[in-house]
Amino acid sequence: MNDRLARVTLMRLAEPGDAVMGRLVASQGPDAAVGRIREGRPDPEFARWFAASSCQGSAGSRQERVTVRLERMFAAWAARLETAEPDRDLAEGERAGARLVVPGDCEWPTQLNDLGDSRPHALWLHGDADLRFSCLRSVAVVGSRAATPYGTHVAAEFGAGLSERGWSVVSGGAYGIDGAVHRGALACGTPTVAVLACGTDIAYPSAHHSLFAAVRSQGLLVSECPMGVHPTRPRFLVRNRLIAALTRGTVVVEAAVRSGALNTAGHAVSLNRHLAAVPGPVTSETSAGCHRLIRQGTATCVTTPEEMIELVGAMGGDLAPEPRGPVFPRDRLNPETRAVLEAVPARAGAGPATIAVAAGVDLETVLSCLGGLAAAGYVERVPRGWRLRPDRSGGG
Amino acid sequence: MNDRLARVTLMRLAEPGDAVMGRLVASQGPDAAVGRIREGRPDPEFARWFAASSCQGSAGSRQERVTVRLERMFAAWAARLETAEPDRDLAEGERAGARLVVPGDCEWPTQLNDLGDSRPHALWLHGDADLRFSCLRSVAVVGSRAATPYGTHVAAEFGAGLSERGWSVVSGGAYGIDGAVHRGALACGTPTVAVLACGTDIAYPSAHHSLFAAVRSQGLLVSECPMGVHPTRPRFLVRNRLIAALTRGTVVVEAAVRSGALNTAGHAVSLNRHLAAVPGPVTSETSAGCHRLIRQGTATCVTTPEEMIELVGAMGGDLAPEPRGPVFPRDRLNPETRAVLEAVPARAGAGPATIAVAAGVDLETVLSCLGGLAAAGYVERVPRGWRLRPDRSGGG
Repeated sequence: MNDRLARVTLMRLAEPGDAVMGRLVASQGPDAAVGRIREGRPDPEFARWFAASSCQGSAGSRQERVTVRLERMFAAWAARLETAEPDRDLAEGERAGARLVVPGDCEWPTQLNDLGDSRPHALWLHGDADLRFSCLRSVAVVGSRAATPYGTHVAAEFGAGLSERGWSVVSGGAYGIDGAVHRGALACGTPTVAVLACGTDIAYPSAHHSLFAAVRSQGLLVSECPMGVHPTRPRFLVRNRLIAALTRGTVVVEAAVRSGALNTAGHAVSLNRHLAAVPGPVTSETSAGCHRLIRQGTATCVTTPEEMIELVGAMGGDLAPEPRGPVFPRDRLNPETRAVLEAVPARAGAGPATIAVAAGVDLETVLSCLGGLAAAGYVERVPRGWRLRPDRSGGG
Repeated sequence: MNDRLARVTLMRLAEPGDAVMGRLVASQGPDAAVGRIREGRPDPEFARWFAASSCQGSAGSRQERVTVRLERMFAAWAARLETAEPDRDLAEGERAGARLVVPGDCEWPTQLNDLGDSRPHALWLHGDADLRFSCLRSVAVVGSRAATPYGTHVAAEFGAGLSERGWSVVSGGAYGIDGAVHRGALACGTPTVAVLACGTDIAYPSAHHSLFAAVRSQGLLVSECPMGVHPTRPRFLVRNRLIAALTRGTVVVEAAVRSGALNTAGHAVSLNRHLAAVPGPVTSETSAGCHRLIRQGTATCVTTPEEMIELVGAMGGDLAPEPRGPVFPRDRLNPETRAVLEAVPARAGAGPATIAVAAGVDLETVLSCLGGLAAAGYVERVPRGWRLRPDRSGGG
């Protein structure tokens, strides 16, 4: 059995992300691992490692229970091995138009190695983009399925804004934030990566059928499940580790306090990726998860795609512009002139001596300041002295 | 001249918060300070202090310029002294219904001493509440005049929520956030403190006439300006230091990047008070200032009055509840049972053996789990095995 065929077999045996299976494959190689599972029980060395990692320093009876647990795992994998048809899986994938990528391939994104024992055995890719290249400068944009119009607007802006600046977006394929961020990126003609919790041939949700077609033609659908596999709740959660691991950082656009997006956020943190969250109205339940991440200091508060790029980009090289308000002409006055201007009455005029007392400046200075202010259009001379020009453009 | 009369005089001589005047009063007492100003020039010792604090280690020519600057200040103060009528100011204040409070009085809030040389000489108070008592547990709630409906809603919620929990709110008297927070607090029947940049007899803006009347009857109007003094731009800025100094912390509800509320935030930080900001939609200009404070780490992200109280309250004594989502019955299933539940198909039934392979659990466990799940209403038996109950309440 060759390496690729063995990996396709492994995709059927344990659930994605199973760290015990990952350890078995890492220590013995995919082919030997399949052989060992066919025998239906672990070799003594692996059993010792499992016992040591599960119950450090425990007594004998606990070690026995742990051994039983490992043997049950092997039995379950062996049962699945009987129904596995790796040749058919490979053929079906290729018939669907997908390609298999395994560790060591050019297109394999090496950052997935950060996942350790829960690294996927292989990935099915469907689309024209190159996965490794697309993810070199990439950001995960995640959030609620039950997003608000505010959330989908912001997600689309992030999708478009990141793409315009040469960053790929990676997300899931769900309603709400996931869909909006892909649409935003697709509108800019940039590759976008959707990581699915089901086979790449399954459109889940089915209403995203045409969205997935667009992602395929411009970017990539990615999955660690064989064709035809349907998503389950745990598969969504383990899928999230891939979204976090593929990218330099994750931004949570909208998430309630129990959103699955916070699971992705947790993966990002434990993988030492950057984590950001977009604030929203405090009156919105779907921003409460974002606010909690920001309050705890777990996530950086990010309000624009530029700020996200500043976070994940090259240090000093991808700085976001500081938000600035308008600059009023009045701001450029020196302190004395500004004091004089403040002392000039709005309607009835006042003489320079009165203005001098009010401004706390001497008469000579007042006269020179008033001349300048009149020239700049701030004040005007009236019969009883000086007053503000009603149409002054000093900026309110 | 007695101390109170001297302080009333001083309120007319320099602008509020003038640190040079503050130093003069601190070093010589209010009465002697007025006498010195009447002479029109500083005593040599004060001039030496001023020169030393303005130009440490500079050459002679710069020191001379500094001396000239101080003499000009004294001349300007002396010119104002000629028009000052402290007896009339006192009488007018009392006629308006206000009372003068000076350092050393029972009602003087000693936390204002943190302002050092820019501590106010005295305060005019108008209203039934006690200033010192009201500010013991108080929070400043500030923000934009040009607030959005979101901002005024949140400000009113903070005003009401803080009041309900026994915290006074302190703010200005402007449109937008200031007005909304007072209204929220007033609705709860708690004292609320409005610090004005004009005399307490001036309703600015005039549309807040009845709001100020309500604040007077239930809380306090506070000002360091004599009656009849109108607000100017600089007076709003120096007024802000009082709002920050009176309270244990400041929360910015809505602020554009150039909002005056950020000036209050700056005072809070330099006075070592707590600073918080309420996030809002990133699409809103009027939340950009809040987001910047949060991003810079200058302000804590706060979304509810409880969270603000946790920040300023007694350590461990005023904790905000953690935001929590709903708990679904499904959450309480053990991992094995959950794996079995995930493996049960939604429509067509499946036999226990198929479910066991899909779930990766042995047959015995599957049978016991299915029994429990059926009893709890998650699954049902059909002719071809087991399937999910269509009306299951497992929480989506």
